[in-house]
Amino acid sequence: MPAPDILRTPAAMLAWSKAAQREGHTIGFVPTMGALHKGHVTLVERARAENTKVVVSVYVNPTQFDNPEDLKKYPRTFDTDRALLEKAGADAIYAPDDAAMYDPEARTWVEVGELADALCGLSRPGHFRGVCTVVTKLLSTVRPDRAYFGQKDYQQLRIIEVVARDLNLGCAIVPCPIVREADGLACSSRNVRLTPQHRQEAVWLSKVLRDAKAKIGAGEREGLKLAGEMAEQLEAHTSGEIDYVAVVDALNFADLQKIEGEVLLALAVKFGSVRLIDNERVSVPVKP
Amino acid sequence: MPAPDILRTPAAMLAWSKAAQREGHTIGFVPTMGALHKGHVTLVERARAENTKVVVSVYVNPTQFDNPEDLKKYPRTFDTDRALLEKAGADAIYAPDDAAMYDPEARTWVEVGELADALCGLSRPGHFRGVCTVVTKLLSTVRPDRAYFGQKDYQQLRIIEVVARDLNLGCAIVPCPIVREADGLACSSRNVRLTPQHRQEAVWLSKVLRDAKAKIGAGEREGLKLAGEMAEQLEAHTSGEIDYVAVVDALNFADLQKIEGEVLLALAVKFGSVRLIDNERVSVPVKP
Repeated sequence: MPAPDILRTPAAMLAWSKAAQREGHTIGFVPTMGALHKGHVTLVERARAENTKVVVSVYVNPTQFDNPEDLKKYPRTFDTDRALLEKAGADAIYAPDDAAMYDPEARTWVEVGELADALCGLSRPGHFRGVCTVVTKLLSTVRPDRAYFGQKDYQQLRIIEVVARDLNLGCAIVPCPIVREADGLACSSRNVRLTPQHRQEAVWLSKVLRDAKAKIGAGEREGLKLAGEMAEQLEAHTSGEIDYVAVVDALNFADLQKIEGEVLLALAVKFGSVRLIDNERVSVPVKP
Repeated sequence: MPAPDILRTPAAMLAWSKAAQREGHTIGFVPTMGALHKGHVTLVERARAENTKVVVSVYVNPTQFDNPEDLKKYPRTFDTDRALLEKAGADAIYAPDDAAMYDPEARTWVEVGELADALCGLSRPGHFRGVCTVVTKLLSTVRPDRAYFGQKDYQQLRIIEVVARDLNLGCAIVPCPIVREADGLACSSRNVRLTPQHRQEAVWLSKVLRDAKAKIGAGEREGLKLAGEMAEQLEAHTSGEIDYVAVVDALNFADLQKIEGEVLLALAVKFGSVRLIDNERVSVPVKP
């Protein structure tokens, strides 16, 4: 594969995309914060299969970090990322720095109201405002036909679907399945920061979700009861601090007393300073 | 001139723009709420001169009306507008209806903070949030190279410059001079709703601004004093109700004690239910 073009400013990226579109190309886009893992690679491969050009952004967006420590410790591995993206067949890497992305006087925010306040938003104030704003900026600059997002960050994916629809961003948002390690842990750039003990315990996030899904399959319909059992299981098997365990409507994140319709099982657990999330979406037929 | 294409949905408009760009065209865009007057025509002519394709949107955006009565009474003259745009050489008219523009579940807003709270924002809560959101939607759909805005709506122009910069909308925002009637009244779609008496009095908005500018030219540097004199003059010569008279920084709308730098003189006056605005921007050399 030829080395991907590297674009460092919105103007350069926009010019690249406009030129590609003039030549009749379709553009698939994978936004990332770098520290790429095999989850990201599946997104790039999907984009590669469905478009004639593939752009990957590598940008650790400061406005979506509620915790300065997390921002500081977020892994930055650009040389490895670049090599991996070249191998995966990316045509361009959009890697602006903060000065290129945010004017010192920047004051515009994209907001989605209460969707941003549920689940991860509860303990990460301002996080989704930062996500919505940076994704709007990235999509406005890259102007892709399709953008690919992993379902591991389910709330993010849902919120971006809403923003793209509401702001007419003119880009299909393509949800992609969670990619997991052999033992079931969802791939995340933060996994490398886990201690060996926490890494072992972390497998329980996916186990608890699988068990909960099985219970729904076996007829469980009480949301509060199921969430309580999920929390108990996490407490029994991990030393992590539970941020939330949720059994909610998959579209608007409202708590579900009765488990039916499009259901999201989601959880977030902190192991030391490393916060992990995972989820399962389940379709439960509504019985009259 | 051939009749302009009429596009009724974001998808149709986006497809039109993408096709034009694939053919190598540049797109100039004039967003309007219809009820076109000669001010709008100068924007279309400027767009015509600087781009190979011209798109004009005609959409009375409900989310920017703080007053339901104003929304209801806003003039709607599509057939006249279309004829005028054909004559002025527009290639496409983007005229979606509300259902095409806003999903019933729409919940995304573009916000610019305190810039939206000054001047017109004080008496029109939510107005600029609606403007920022709809302009982001329009620019995302039309994807112009340049968008043309009249300086009559100075605060709107400045806010849109900020939004386009902050969200990387990839479009130059082109400010265009205020177009006035023979007696000096700034052209506005709302002028037709004035009573004959109010129409005569309304000329004082521009007179007061001209006088204030002349006073600055003659050395006046006290912001509060000048604003007071402007208000007195309006009260002496019109029966209108003053909404605001402002002598402020032209970039951030902060009140100016001392008149220097980039200065905006702005005012808003209500004649019955018709609210008129006008402004002058003045560059005053900063003396050490």
